[in-house]
Amino acid sequence: MSFLYLRDELREASPLVQCLTNSVAMPLSANVLLAAGASPAMIDTPEESREFAAAASGVLINVGTPTAERYAAMREAVRGATDAGTPWVVDPVGAGVLPHRTDFVGSLLDAAPTALRGNASEIAALGGTGAGGRGVDAVGDVDEALPAARALAGRTGGVVAVSGPEDLIVSPGRITRLTSGDPLLTLVSGSGCSLGALCAAYLGLGVDSHDAVLAAHAHAGAAAQIAARSATGPGGFAAAWLDALHHITSAEIADLISWKDLA
Amino acid sequence: MSFLYLRDELREASPLVQCLTNSVAMPLSANVLLAAGASPAMIDTPEESREFAAAASGVLINVGTPTAERYAAMREAVRGATDAGTPWVVDPVGAGVLPHRTDFVGSLLDAAPTALRGNASEIAALGGTGAGGRGVDAVGDVDEALPAARALAGRTGGVVAVSGPEDLIVSPGRITRLTSGDPLLTLVSGSGCSLGALCAAYLGLGVDSHDAVLAAHAHAGAAAQIAARSATGPGGFAAAWLDALHHITSAEIADLISWKDLA
Amino acid sequence: MSFLYLRDELREASPLVQCLTNSVAMPLSANVLLAAGASPAMIDTPEESREFAAAASGVLINVGTPTAERYAAMREAVRGATDAGTPWVVDPVGAGVLPHRTDFVGSLLDAAPTALRGNASEIAALGGTGAGGRGVDAVGDVDEALPAARALAGRTGGVVAVSGPEDLIVSPGRITRLTSGDPLLTLVSGSGCSLGALCAAYLGLGVDSHDAVLAAHAHAGAAAQIAARSATGPGGFAAAWLDALHHITSAEIADLISWKDLA
Repeated sequence: MSFLYLRDELREASPLVQCLTNSVAMPLSANVLLAAGASPAMIDTPEESREFAAAASGVLINVGTPTAERYAAMREAVRGATDAGTPWVVDPVGAGVLPHRTDFVGSLLDAAPTALRGNASEIAALGGTGAGGRGVDAVGDVDEALPAARALAGRTGGVVAVSGPEDLIVSPGRITRLTSGDPLLTLVSGSGCSLGALCAAYLGLGVDSHDAVLAAHAHAGAAAQIAARSATGPGGFAAAWLDALHHITSAEIADLISWKDLA
Repeated sequence: MSFLYLRDELREASPLVQCLTNSVAMPLSANVLLAAGASPAMIDTPEESREFAAAASGVLINVGTPTAERYAAMREAVRGATDAGTPWVVDPVGAGVLPHRTDFVGSLLDAAPTALRGNASEIAALGGTGAGGRGVDAVGDVDEALPAARALAGRTGGVVAVSGPEDLIVSPGRITRLTSGDPLLTLVSGSGCSLGALCAAYLGLGVDSHDAVLAAHAHAGAAAQIAARSATGPGGFAAAWLDALHHITSAEIADLISWKDLA
Repeated sequence: MSFLYLRDELREASPLVQCLTNSVAMPLSANVLLAAGASPAMIDTPEESREFAAAASGVLINVGTPTAERYAAMREAVRGATDAGTPWVVDPVGAGVLPHRTDFVGSLLDAAPTALRGNASEIAALGGTGAGGRGVDAVGDVDEALPAARALAGRTGGVVAVSGPEDLIVSPGRITRLTSGDPLLTLVSGSGCSLGALCAAYLGLGVDSHDAVLAAHAHAGAAAQIAARSATGPGGFAAAWLDALHHITSAEIADLISWKDLA
């Protein structure tokens, strides 16, 4: 089965996605998951996150706006996910720029996340080939992050996604380049973080991890292309993106994107 | 006076509603209150919440994404509301699934909230007749939660609202079934939490508590029906819901909903 | 160069704006900055905020929903900004009503922020001429806050903006009254907080502080006038405001606003 048809599976299975994510992206991430057909649960306290991660279909760990308590909750969630075999995704917002959270993300990578999703500068910094961006911006060319992504995929044994104008999905044995999306996504705060949440949803289907991460990027990107047709600016685009995430079919995704396995 | 005309009172009185709520639902809850004509104030710190609750028209305690500091703030707000006679609402997000917060909600119920608003699985779990949902989802039939709602109304002496495709509003001496709303509401993250905030706003009018909670549900549900006429998906629907919450009149609400006192 | 043309500079320079702001206004503030052409970074932890403030173009300190950890982060950010000469803005949400945060804002004012932006009741309370509003509401006439604004400008040596139906921008040597905006802004939660963030963005251009704060208010207000033309309620207006913030040109701003130097 091609990854394209996972979109229909997501709608049917409605995986339960636990998000430990930043305060900026919380509302959009929850709405993106609901629109796509998944079921979000923002369980992010140290007392509750471990137990919940064991029961969830997938877990997102996004390190934006990280309080001490949320760091503790993330560690607990990783333990719960690891013990139960729940797939989990790391979104290393701001890694490479901010030493404190870069250290924390390093410790997460040691725990072998199912997937790591970031922009080119974050991946380059984590993989040791870049100096980081200037904050949470997507700067740097996606292709320049390929060596770092390969190194990180080797280190974690999981999937590494470099999101940008084009996306690179890198696994120990496979590299896929995906062309989809629209520049208006860069004007919607939290759109990248929401994509990380969507990766956790697709991984929650229990399919091949590379396919799942690819399917999440294709779904988000193709929906953005539909939304951009009618949008006249970033405000209207954000609403139209949610609408398209909800209605889009696997056939529409297939028509809108292009992709190629590089290795 | 029928509860229907409370909509006009809300617009005139513009009650000040203190919200201690989860980080996901904060922006939407504030916007729902503003659209409806109330005045939101997200005062949720232990140092400030007690004093503010004494001055507010109504208080919402929503236990989603609960930090230790926010738990402390909630306890202070309950003290302030209780001492001053300010009506207060509990929204038990995730109760029944997560033991830590279920215990906390139990302690809130001991303090006799003016109203409790949840979905069927949360109310069933709190009332001892259900095993809880799988997170923050609304699962389970509203009617199945009726015995639990009656038990909880008896325990607290207040109103218990079971929100869902149909709503049950249960008080020690009265049960009302309300038909309103639209399924698109379930695709808007925080719409249920915002309904809890709207209950606090209507209770802030100082009218009969059962009528106030009923009016809040009717207002939110009828506005959703208007929004669904033009919306093509969850993104556009969320914006149209705010528009309808703002413009809707008591006459329009009366036309759109149906309700019946069962006891 | 008139302040009007700073709009074009903002788009070209894309200043990096660090926001330590409240949980309600975070998503909208980030989206407003992106729409306007700036680059938001919500770096608000004690471990990271000082170092980041030294590198940012501008810093916003907004005291809504203030946790103990965020207070600590704000103090660190002020140190970083002060040491590096980064311009920084204080938004005193709720000052005058809530003693705990009023004290904190007082300590911020002692550190001489580049700008202070609030509504009339907040500025009057901080300047010693008012008793505060009833929460985060904009109550009180802008002109009544002029003496307080002048006193605060004298105390801090910086710009004091009183935002309202009309805006007063007050510096030690200059007072400007600006007419722009639309009443629908008062129905969008976080619109005032986002204006504070936009002030930090314009200050990040390194131009005259009075001009920068004036330009931010003109940009936000004129975009609201454009958005109000098509909006039928607060939900659609919020999206249209973001669209207009993105597309608006300096010539359109000049056409839509009026302003006058009073001193």
